[in-house]
Amino acid sequence: MTISDLSLEALRGVDVSQLHYLELGTLSLEVSGVLPGASLAYETWGTLNADASNAVLVQHALTGSSHAAQGESAQPGWWQELVGPGKAVDTEKYFVVAANILGGCYGSTGPSSIAPDGEPWGSRFPFLTLRDSVQAEARLADALGITRWHAVIGGSMGGARALEWAVSFPERVLHAIVLAACAASTAEQIALAQTQILAIQQDPRYQGGDYYQDDPPLNGLGLARRIAHISYRSESELAARFGRQAQQGELPVSAQRAGQLRLQRYQVESYLDHKAAKLSQIFDPNSYLTLTEALMSHDLGRGRGGLRAALERTSGVRFSLAAVSSDRLYLPSQMAELAAALPKPVQVHQITSEIGHDGFLTETAQIAALIAQSGF
Amino acid sequence: MTISDLSLEALRGVDVSQLHYLELGTLSLEVSGVLPGASLAYETWGTLNADASNAVLVQHALTGSSHAAQGESAQPGWWQELVGPGKAVDTEKYFVVAANILGGCYGSTGPSSIAPDGEPWGSRFPFLTLRDSVQAEARLADALGITRWHAVIGGSMGGARALEWAVSFPERVLHAIVLAACAASTAEQIALAQTQILAIQQDPRYQGGDYYQDDPPLNGLGLARRIAHISYRSESELAARFGRQAQQGELPVSAQRAGQLRLQRYQVESYLDHKAAKLSQIFDPNSYLTLTEALMSHDLGRGRGGLRAALERTSGVRFSLAAVSSDRLYLPSQMAELAAALPKPVQVHQITSEIGHDGFLTETAQIAALIAQSGF
Repeated sequence: MTISDLSLEALRGVDVSQLHYLELGTLSLEVSGVLPGASLAYETWGTLNADASNAVLVQHALTGSSHAAQGESAQPGWWQELVGPGKAVDTEKYFVVAANILGGCYGSTGPSSIAPDGEPWGSRFPFLTLRDSVQAEARLADALGITRWHAVIGGSMGGARALEWAVSFPERVLHAIVLAACAASTAEQIALAQTQILAIQQDPRYQGGDYYQDDPPLNGLGLARRIAHISYRSESELAARFGRQAQQGELPVSAQRAGQLRLQRYQVESYLDHKAAKLSQIFDPNSYLTLTEALMSHDLGRGRGGLRAALERTSGVRFSLAAVSSDRLYLPSQMAELAAALPKPVQVHQITSEIGHDGFLTETAQIAALIAQSGF
Repeated sequence: MTISDLSLEALRGVDVSQLHYLELGTLSLEVSGVLPGASLAYETWGTLNADASNAVLVQHALTGSSHAAQGESAQPGWWQELVGPGKAVDTEKYFVVAANILGGCYGSTGPSSIAPDGEPWGSRFPFLTLRDSVQAEARLADALGITRWHAVIGGSMGGARALEWAVSFPERVLHAIVLAACAASTAEQIALAQTQILAIQQDPRYQGGDYYQDDPPLNGLGLARRIAHISYRSESELAARFGRQAQQGELPVSAQRAGQLRLQRYQVESYLDHKAAKLSQIFDPNSYLTLTEALMSHDLGRGRGGLRAALERTSGVRFSLAAVSSDRLYLPSQMAELAAALPKPVQVHQITSEIGHDGFLTETAQIAALIAQSGF
């Protein structure tokens, strides 16, 4: 698979026909100097009203994309049940924007993009923080004529991006609706991220990040995805769905193991294999690294005198916070700590779910109710 | 590093001078035919009494060894504070035996051992179950003249081995003291195990398992160890110890990341790197795979009509069960399920600890109290 194949694969995850592009020129980065020739790819639904007061920014998670909703596209969005005409984020009422994050592989400038010298960025792509992505999105808001978002909303890394928006540009965010996220990546989140990074970097196809003329390190990406996916689900959900069942036609307790890759699997292994294969078809390993490192850097208080001082400036922002009851990656207690540190503490809503972290994607009815409650 | 270097490194983990060996000849395996030329390496402390009624079998965990206690050796054992003269497992009173598990790399026959054809087993080493290791240990008990163990005791995989002893040979076990284990490996435990297996098998040095003439896949082993180690500790312990601190002299939020291995680290990453490096010096990756797959196969009820039917036969065994309060790999609820399935249900003791699963190694005072309570 070459770079062009990978890009095509990647772009299958979004409907290219719906993508808009904004050229940002040279972008100043928080700690990495400048990124020249940057652009953002984004999608929109609905119509901006005359005073530009009905704009909503929907922020995707680590491996998500701008394709939050279907729109004219044939392909359903990742928050299909929440974003659309008459839905919780009503595209007949709101002008909804979703940008592919800087550093990703769905059209915004990332490691697989062509640098000014005509070669893919690869290993030369700069370290990014979530603040860099928010700065880029602020330029998008400027270009669209949006002085203040009616709401910025997201879950997981999308929640961290929404929080960073509220702290970076409090005057530009009326509602911040944040699901399954926290104020700063924790030691455990960093630890799990490191294993995912190493899974990719230890793949011999990684070649230090300059693999675009050859096969990309998809085995490594697949392993990273498996590690991550376990953390996205709950123990009890995996137990209930899979237990110790063997994959159909396979014999995990048999003489056939020796020296082979796992061809005789338990059902939960087949499930993880499927998740790995699926992501490997649509995601660039370098983007996975770049965004994982950006998420590791997530810390609202960094360079701002700590969390409480950073949040002081958000007194004009209306926060709605929700945690998934069974989330073991972004613990409900971490959301409670964030809530308590706000200038006007709010109560954290609980999304009741057995699924774990991924509840921010699956529990759409509860999220719709939360959005309705937010006064949004 | 060649096979001989690796063996030497591995053997540094135990005091070779204390190792005894028992030749088992050809061993019949549960599902993989036979293992010819098998032997067990073991250590003992104390003296077997005249009626052989004071023998205690201490079972090590996944990467542990027979070196549970110091004895004459200069090197402390992994349960140093529990096994020794006057300690909870009193070697002045009991004859204590610890065997290196079949399939390991501390002297018992494993993948790095020389097969009958003069070459290392490597990829040809058979798939083993924990029942196979217990069968081998029963031959050791026979050879030592031990008809019935006064106690079999272990935590984590050592706990699974103790349980399998109680079910395989209920008439040969008086007390079974089981810590931080469960009746059958769960979907999540299997899922985490798969990621660790792939981490090793995707290392280019793995060579299908036949790497003994070359460098072993230690990067893969190190990654497997990191994934495992996160599951051995608790979120709160990692947060309290490391938080988001940078490793001294390193700048994880800096321009220096691009395309490099993680040289600019958070402190928790350095901690995981250390754990990975340490295991890579003393453990054979093929043994890690073999034992991980054996642990995945752990299921007391397999082929025995289910868990309750399997446990029926243990009515003469006195069980003492304990779970670590913060264990997220072997959940206290799983131990409670096991306890409830016993023919005479027992109450599960709680080892109160913030550390997580590794509490079975660190909370020695509570474990000593538990052993004392057991009437052992």
